[in-house]
Amino acid sequence: MSLDNLSINFATVRQAGSFGAIVDACLRHGITAISPWREHVAEAGLVEAARIVASNGLRVTGHCRGGFFSAADAAGRRAAIEDNRRAIDEAAALSASCLVMVVGGLPKGSRDLSGARQMVEDGFAEILPYARQQGVKLALEPLHPFYAAERACLNTLKQALDLCDKLGEGTGVAIDVYHLWWDPELEEQVARAGRNGQIVAHHICDWLVPTVDPLNDRGMMGDGVIDLGRFRAMIENAGYRGPQEVEIFSHRWQARPVDEVLATIVDRYQTVCQTITGAAAAT
Amino acid sequence: MSLDNLSINFATVRQAGSFGAIVDACLRHGITAISPWREHVAEAGLVEAARIVASNGLRVTGHCRGGFFSAADAAGRRAAIEDNRRAIDEAAALSASCLVMVVGGLPKGSRDLSGARQMVEDGFAEILPYARQQGVKLALEPLHPFYAAERACLNTLKQALDLCDKLGEGTGVAIDVYHLWWDPELEEQVARAGRNGQIVAHHICDWLVPTVDPLNDRGMMGDGVIDLGRFRAMIENAGYRGPQEVEIFSHRWQARPVDEVLATIVDRYQTVCQTITGAAAAT
Repeated sequence: MSLDNLSINFATVRQAGSFGAIVDACLRHGITAISPWREHVAEAGLVEAARIVASNGLRVTGHCRGGFFSAADAAGRRAAIEDNRRAIDEAAALSASCLVMVVGGLPKGSRDLSGARQMVEDGFAEILPYARQQGVKLALEPLHPFYAAERACLNTLKQALDLCDKLGEGTGVAIDVYHLWWDPELEEQVARAGRNGQIVAHHICDWLVPTVDPLNDRGMMGDGVIDLGRFRAMIENAGYRGPQEVEIFSHRWQARPVDEVLATIVDRYQTVCQTITGAAAAT
Repeated sequence: MSLDNLSINFATVRQAGSFGAIVDACLRHGITAISPWREHVAEAGLVEAARIVASNGLRVTGHCRGGFFSAADAAGRRAAIEDNRRAIDEAAALSASCLVMVVGGLPKGSRDLSGARQMVEDGFAEILPYARQQGVKLALEPLHPFYAAERACLNTLKQALDLCDKLGEGTGVAIDVYHLWWDPELEEQVARAGRNGQIVAHHICDWLVPTVDPLNDRGMMGDGVIDLGRFRAMIENAGYRGPQEVEIFSHRWQARPVDEVLATIVDRYQTVCQTITGAAAAT
């Protein structure tokens, strides 16, 4: 089965080391789509990272990450805007399909959630013209409600899509199974996103029972309770046939040799992550 | 300020010991509304528990808890129905305002979330006639999406209200700030619940940053990021003037002397849990 639609988010295999070392590990397993983090790019240098991408014919399914718009004061919000511009430049240089946006939670000391949400909307409005100019799509990623205070006050697909509708062209959503699998309105909202061409990234992993650490105990596909085949079918029915990007934050998996992790991912991708018709495997 | 509208869920002060000991502790602090758990009632004996309630003129703002309808096989689902009937009997004997329903998550080994949700609906449909006959209101409690797999596949207020609308008379919702504070549709759904007279319980605590344990690290009111005054105002604007029930699952607070916990609760109730107009304090 083709692995063209399998992408590895660098957070999944950060134990491999540098940008180049992670790419080499992916290539050893026949994987040619990646999603790096800014720190990996910074360490390698943007020019060198872009060279590695181009010379290996890699597809960059997302650059991680922009966002964190909500801040306690105007200087903090201004700094976030500037930082997002740099992230957009990087995403453009890497020819990334999107810049993944984790929007930020409550500013320190604040209990004003709707105020934070307004800051996020304002932040997007401010950087969007620049992103459009650079040809970089912004992927709004709704995060699990568990992260509302600390990471992202965008917490359902509906909320993210409503914001995309407001912002307009150049925006879309990153649909991560971990964050959204529980949502009773999931199917309806995925269909809506597909109808409007707003699905720009699809992240996979699994939800473990029990989840002992909400930050770093995500599961390998197949080890948890998410029906990944059904989830993928839902996305394909919505018209999306793009990559599945594996993003597993896990102390357990980060303690294992990178080749074991990647071999397991390839195996699970070919089994539990496919729809019955296997359309996901075709590019 | 009157404490008539302050209720203590027994889980908050379980270190006090028995049903009688917890009631005594509440009375020492001028608190006359309680919400016991089934194990406390079982240990005391239902007749004795009801006697303690009646002889002290206590208000029982909820009996904890029924539900857990979803099970791997028919025998399990049958057992759940029988157990819920007993819980209804207890709630009736205690003259509880409602039986709090934690509906159950995914059956062991299952990844079929919509199937589990159907089991929950079927379970409610089966016990509701008996609850009506006994005069016991069923309080559907949407739980934070973090608990979707293990405890409750009812995860938003909208979802709970949609189910109440389907089930009809004799049902309502328990609105717990911990589970719902993040929801972008909260205000709209609270207003809807109020309009339809469906708010039957209001639970309070706080969301800590960071939350180190999603099960037993709930915060004391005022120690976290939930704007409790604003939340209460939202509920009062929806027409609910009933009790605020303090339910704090916390290893930290359970390690402290019960009188310290209750004194802190009374203090926080009178400060951070009131709307600006203070209407919450009036019965």
